Amino acid sequence: MLGTGSWGTTFAKILADGGADVYMWARRPEAAAAIDREHRNAEYLPGVTLPANLHATSDLKAAITGAAVVFIAVPSQALRDNLTAIKPLLGRDTIVVSLMKGVEKQTGLRMSQVIEQCLEIEPERVAVASGPNLAMEIAKEQPTAAVVSSISLETAQEVALLARNRYFRTFVNTDVIGTEFGGVLKNLIAVAIGIVDGVGYGENTKASIITRGLVEMTDFAVAQGAQAETLSGLAGLGDLIATCQSPLSRNNTAGKLLGQGYSLAAVVKQMQQTAEGLASVAPVLEIAAASGVEMPIVQQVKRVIEGTMDPRDIAPHLTTASDEPQSEHGLGETGEITPLGGGSVKPGSGLWRRLFGSR
Amino acid sequence: MLGTGSWGTTFAKILADGGADVYMWARRPEAAAAIDREHRNAEYLPGVTLPANLHATSDLKAAITGAAVVFIAVPSQALRDNLTAIKPLLGRDTIVVSLMKGVEKQTGLRMSQVIEQCLEIEPERVAVASGPNLAMEIAKEQPTAAVVSSISLETAQEVALLARNRYFRTFVNTDVIGTEFGGVLKNLIAVAIGIVDGVGYGENTKASIITRGLVEMTDFAVAQGAQAETLSGLAGLGDLIATCQSPLSRNNTAGKLLGQGYSLAAVVKQMQQTAEGLASVAPVLEIAAASGVEMPIVQQVKRVIEGTMDPRDIAPHLTTASDEPQSEHGLGETGEITPLGGGSVKPGSGLWRRLFGSR
Repeated sequence: MLGTGSWGTTFAKILADGGADVYMWARRPEAAAAIDREHRNAEYLPGVTLPANLHATSDLKAAITGAAVVFIAVPSQALRDNLTAIKPLLGRDTIVVSLMKGVEKQTGLRMSQVIEQCLEIEPERVAVASGPNLAMEIAKEQPTAAVVSSISLETAQEVALLARNRYFRTFVNTDVIGTEFGGVLKNLIAVAIGIVDGVGYGENTKASIITRGLVEMTDFAVAQGAQAETLSGLAGLGDLIATCQSPLSRNNTAGKLLGQGYSLAAVVKQMQQTAEGLASVAPVLEIAAASGVEMPIVQQVKRVIEGTMDPRDIAPHLTTASDEPQSEHGLGETGEITPLGGGSVKPGSGLWRRLFGSR
Repeated sequence: MLGTGSWGTTFAKILADGGADVYMWARRPEAAAAIDREHRNAEYLPGVTLPANLHATSDLKAAITGAAVVFIAVPSQALRDNLTAIKPLLGRDTIVVSLMKGVEKQTGLRMSQVIEQCLEIEPERVAVASGPNLAMEIAKEQPTAAVVSSISLETAQEVALLARNRYFRTFVNTDVIGTEFGGVLKNLIAVAIGIVDGVGYGENTKASIITRGLVEMTDFAVAQGAQAETLSGLAGLGDLIATCQSPLSRNNTAGKLLGQGYSLAAVVKQMQQTAEGLASVAPVLEIAAASGVEMPIVQQVKRVIEGTMDPRDIAPHLTTASDEPQSEHGLGETGEITPLGGGSVKPGSGLWRRLFGSR
């Protein structure tokens, strides 16, 4: 396991509680010692006792060599450096699993793409795990479901079996694109929910925005090659609901402040850290426009951020401004999904890179 | 508009705020007078001022005659009697819209089916409206999205245009079966969420149960002829989320008490009114079994109700007890949905009637 933050440590506990011998790598020897000997990670998981079969070392070679599966939960922008360090240590058949959400800013690549590219391994050896991931609640062993995705069903199943215990249940799918986009796009809808919260609207409005927001996430991801049902699953809907309810979510908090009438500048100043959802609004909308995907809720978030819309006016914009009532899922009478035109922007393509790479 | 409860009155306000002249029928003359002259319904919507173009009368003939569209929001078990009363008053082209959720206990028919059967009108003249429907929040004009469904897209659109204003946005679909089943099945998952709440688990567990519960709702409804995407929409997911967050939901409350360790008998005694979700668990599971649909979460709710499972043990049962990790959406590697066998139970069929009709 690479990454000793709250999610990396929690996932290591999940694996250890599932019966595996887990080796975490910590840069600082004293952090490794605390996990290995005192069985705790006081900084990130205060009050949680880690299992005895969860080991830690500051020796990267000792942590990685011989591992059948390597899990990675480092900050997304630090992934490439970490991969370079472990590359010479990996076995020929080692499976690499991303526990991260986001895209690499310089390249616009999803985490699994960075892994494939940088380690030069077959996509069949790469998997991602996602879902509703409020680390502290899982560390307290509250029942949770998650999904493991790989283009190889066999790989996904192998990883899912490892990451499974009495409180953590894993499902599998083979739609890596949809699984990874779920974790990126939910941040935008979490900002919208934060705005609605900040204005003071209740559960009915939030349920409406989550449901319609999921349609926007799905349309966007499908245009990039994802399968719609993945977004309705744990990595899309599941993650979205947990994020929208979490008081710790930066995106939610940023939205709340915007909804209360603070300007973007004031929000950024007050939060003193970035809310990924705010930064992704503009590039996602540009890609959506290029793909012919309508995202009226994300559009309103943009206007609130820009200060050109009163957050209380989010209501009329739940739909696009057509006179004719829209079909709920862009379906015709036959129930068939209209495939999008050829304008979709592939992750890692020039436009994508220009958009995400510019910030 | 038939029905002067909180939902009927709120929906009448929605229509009036959309510009229509609305006539409500109230059995008691004094209730009609309060709505018509004082513009309020103090019993069901305290503090809400109703629009001036919302009229009320205790004269059924005056309320119905000449109406282009009749909306019905009466208790589901009183629907048939109300229909008998209005049948001679309807015009040849009058559209009838159900705002109700549930099935008729004696027949197992969905509300739209009761309307078609009892009024002897073509299904093209029948529509249903559903979605996240916390009446009080909508009456306070908090932004909300809803869906209007009819097998006739034209009818759905006509009704959707009427039920649309600055705070209420309607979408359309043509999947009446899925739209109506969403409103029935969400009660079961709301009980499960209540249990989890009662035990004290947090947002992560709830997000997992909502997501996996939606899969169970979808599988069940699809086996009865619904389209999967309808359940991911406002009448399924949207209604489910709002219900799970509502402190007023009887199903949620019943689940909470069960989760806190009260027996079913104690819960029923304490609540002094029925929670529809509790009563539907057994018949839905029987139909699911006959249709080859697995519903592990609803199954656990049944065991908690029976007292054969500790509510804190809901975790291991998020999935069925197979060794192999399950696909997230019952998909094979090709992404195709395996059609269910011929064992599905049609609403209104013998088995369905026996199950729902027995209570």
